[in-house]
Amino acid sequence: MQFMKMQGLMQMSNLGQFTHGNDAYRYTNEIKADFSTNTWYLGPHPKVIQLLQAEIDCVANYPQLHGESLTEQLADNWHVSSDQIVLCNGTAEAIYLIAQAYQKASSRIVTPTFSEYEHACQIFEHHISYCGAGFIAESMNTPEGLMWLCNPNNPTGQVFGRDVLLSIIKQNPQTLFVIDEAYADFCMEEVTLSAYIGKYKNLLILKSMTKNYCLPGLRLGYVMGHQSVVQKIALYRPPWSVNSLALKAGEFSLKNPLISEDSLLQYLSLSRELMLELNTIDQVEVQGSSTGFFLLKTPMKAAELKHLLVEKYGLLIRDASNFRTLSEYHIRVASLTRASNALLVNAFNEIFA
Amino acid sequence: MQFMKMQGLMQMSNLGQFTHGNDAYRYTNEIKADFSTNTWYLGPHPKVIQLLQAEIDCVANYPQLHGESLTEQLADNWHVSSDQIVLCNGTAEAIYLIAQAYQKASSRIVTPTFSEYEHACQIFEHHISYCGAGFIAESMNTPEGLMWLCNPNNPTGQVFGRDVLLSIIKQNPQTLFVIDEAYADFCMEEVTLSAYIGKYKNLLILKSMTKNYCLPGLRLGYVMGHQSVVQKIALYRPPWSVNSLALKAGEFSLKNPLISEDSLLQYLSLSRELMLELNTIDQVEVQGSSTGFFLLKTPMKAAELKHLLVEKYGLLIRDASNFRTLSEYHIRVASLTRASNALLVNAFNEIFA
Repeated sequence: MQFMKMQGLMQMSNLGQFTHGNDAYRYTNEIKADFSTNTWYLGPHPKVIQLLQAEIDCVANYPQLHGESLTEQLADNWHVSSDQIVLCNGTAEAIYLIAQAYQKASSRIVTPTFSEYEHACQIFEHHISYCGAGFIAESMNTPEGLMWLCNPNNPTGQVFGRDVLLSIIKQNPQTLFVIDEAYADFCMEEVTLSAYIGKYKNLLILKSMTKNYCLPGLRLGYVMGHQSVVQKIALYRPPWSVNSLALKAGEFSLKNPLISEDSLLQYLSLSRELMLELNTIDQVEVQGSSTGFFLLKTPMKAAELKHLLVEKYGLLIRDASNFRTLSEYHIRVASLTRASNALLVNAFNEIFA
Repeated sequence: MQFMKMQGLMQMSNLGQFTHGNDAYRYTNEIKADFSTNTWYLGPHPKVIQLLQAEIDCVANYPQLHGESLTEQLADNWHVSSDQIVLCNGTAEAIYLIAQAYQKASSRIVTPTFSEYEHACQIFEHHISYCGAGFIAESMNTPEGLMWLCNPNNPTGQVFGRDVLLSIIKQNPQTLFVIDEAYADFCMEEVTLSAYIGKYKNLLILKSMTKNYCLPGLRLGYVMGHQSVVQKIALYRPPWSVNSLALKAGEFSLKNPLISEDSLLQYLSLSRELMLELNTIDQVEVQGSSTGFFLLKTPMKAAELKHLLVEKYGLLIRDASNFRTLSEYHIRVASLTRASNALLVNAFNEIFA
């Protein structure tokens, strides 16, 4: 047996290219404010926490084999059929399952973006090409294979217009569009293409239930798409993939949205304020965003700045230098409350005075 | 794109060949006693439940990317290095990752056994062959590829001797032995081969933390083996695969074993008693087992008997007819408390009077 043949690929994946935010556990310092993660800034619904505590005994039984009940509720919610949805152990699993179902396909990734599309495509030996977000336009022709795109995009916070995407999807049946809508609830624009599930066989939508409900520790996401594609993906999903508590939280959350229009407006206003304040600092360059997180470029290397902010200020940011096409000076910040944001502004003012 | 090419495989996997126990959720009746699952019969440690309730806020943060802390604790526990362990979203994920890492390999499965080995090998296009448990013997030659074996075996409860397995592993370096020790804590015999991790490059051990700690709803398992094999498997595991609560429960459970020698002896004695009582019924044939679960053959079709027991008695058993090599008259029963066992014995006495 060729036990060693993957060695090269293994080494490749250890380069830190695929590290992520919300990594306070790597530090011994107390973290006062965590700007490194894009989950809802006020934390989960207090009632979902109470529910999980009350229903904790469910851990003593197996979850439903494929989360059948929640899948049906999601189908009702989106007006699709339940065979057009596959529930996953977070969208991370969904991304791997898709890459796996189309092993060795061609994949084009719209960059800079969440690194796990690339990671999964590498592992499953896709022929990967890249395309800047600026190239996305109505009359665009896309190659045969898969096209991965995040809307709103992580880490830029930029939104791709729904009409533009629809026209591209319609015009390019040879391309399977994998559109990650993990942050769709984090912007005022109506971005979701969920109404077109089943209409376009070449559209797959990734949905996370851990960002908008702030439950990333539970792991819960799903894929929606034409049943022929979705069932192909479901084939590779191990049984009992979604744990019992995630299923409970998912059922509750569907009925009890955490982000209202008002709370979103307030969040986006906090975020704008933070962007403006950081942008007044001479050496800091803030990039526009339609959501609560955004990119910044500073004269200090991101790794160094991250280290300094943790060590001296107890503040955690996302070193964004490992996003393809970004520089080693890029960081990503997600807005928090006004009080927490002030800590970051003060720290930046001290550092870049 | 060939959207439809997997259709045949998809249909194949819908045949009910891969259904499982602990499926009370499929019934509207109240289930008074569930004999269909092999998890520890007295439920989880009360303190792990308290811990999960107290630490519930951890769901608001991402888990460690690869469960690094628990992996290190497991490594300490088994006296191996942390690169010889890969933590998984239940052993179900582990089985899929192994089958995937050795896609299209030859796999021999020792039957009858847990159906997910076969399921995973089918999905990843292994060339599958089967071998009865009776053929496992010291001087055995095994083919190149993988050999899947569960010890103690599910559903038979039979134990393969450690010395026999070691001699086979030693003699057959061309075979990668995947030994599922999910039920190793459920028998008096010392079955685990964990002391040989790293010594034999062709040994992989699957460990579940949800049977012996009765936490199947949380999903937690791991693979141990030579680092060259384990790291190859880890490559295919999505990030954040194990949720935050499973990690907490795992860390607690490692320090607080649920099954003591005394409690195991008591359980096995309950199980023997149940086997003997059921075996006195004329038409019921109980098969020997070294653990708390065992096979039975009755004159009634398993599906029919299962239905009758649920509908009339509120008792859940495992229809074992979908285990390869078993007949449509086989069921599996896991012992519960004496009071619950009496319900089953009474029901059997009525049905097979």
